Amino acid sequence: MVVGCIPEWVDNRILLCRRAIEPRYGLWTLPAGFMENGETVQQGAARETLEEAQARVAVGALYSMFNLPHIDQVYLLFRARLLDLDFGPGDESLEVALFDPAGIPWDALAFPVIAESLRLFLADRENGSVSLRSGTIVRTPGERMRYRTELHEPMEAWS
Amino acid sequence: MVVGCIPEWVDNRILLCRRAIEPRYGLWTLPAGFMENGETVQQGAARETLEEAQARVAVGALYSMFNLPHIDQVYLLFRARLLDLDFGPGDESLEVALFDPAGIPWDALAFPVIAESLRLFLADRENGSVSLRSGTIVRTPGERMRYRTELHEPMEAWS
Repeated sequence: MVVGCIPEWVDNRILLCRRAIEPRYGLWTLPAGFMENGETVQQGAARETLEEAQARVAVGALYSMFNLPHIDQVYLLFRARLLDLDFGPGDESLEVALFDPAGIPWDALAFPVIAESLRLFLADRENGSVSLRSGTIVRTPGERMRYRTELHEPMEAWS
Repeated sequence: MVVGCIPEWVDNRILLCRRAIEPRYGLWTLPAGFMENGETVQQGAARETLEEAQARVAVGALYSMFNLPHIDQVYLLFRARLLDLDFGPGDESLEVALFDPAGIPWDALAFPVIAESLRLFLADRENGSVSLRSGTIVRTPGERMRYRTELHEPMEAWS
């Protein structure tokens, strides 16, 4: 399971990291990585943010839960408040920066699950209705690797 | 990661399974188990329900996410609509039954995470405000194994 977060500064900018490792060297992503033993999902998200961006966050509500069944992964991304601006690249990052929603480098994002979560989050935040998004990233066959997203729209409960 | 569900029938009764395996042989639980490769969390919850209770469900929204760091597990329990009453014990169950909220066998539930999720869910459903609950089950030292629950109350977002 991969845990990470969407670190927001008070002015609505979002922290992204440019990868110093493969796969997707040189592309931008949210801080995220594999859970370790003995930690909670929230602690894992905060630890990854500290390791990759040297950034301290207060981890909040779960925002997105995406299945990636083609690689047997589940991504959990949390909302997070960046607590100060003393961040910088960790060992696995070339660069760490805050981005206005209008300045997100959409063509240079590392992973479909990150792009989809960011796209949904910025739209939901703009609309003032941020709540858990759930879906599946499906790899579709073709010459290049392509993906589509299926969002889960929970059924109504009985009554 | 363990995935499971809270199967509800139209009359608000909830399906529970009595375990035919260790640990906690003979005690009641919600259908849940370890995710398998190639499936989504929702598919895993439905598969476990079919295997343990021979029951078909429509899996809905994520209801509870609990960390169990003392055993390196994360539990995801979903709301689910039971689609028919043709259920029965699978290989790992002695008995499967529907319970009114007033009839839940609280003293014979198999795991703290199940008891806590059920307790929260029944209260939230009664109050008409069911949304994601997140927390950590902490094992506390002592003569017998005891546990306490810490619920995560997500911080407010900026602004």
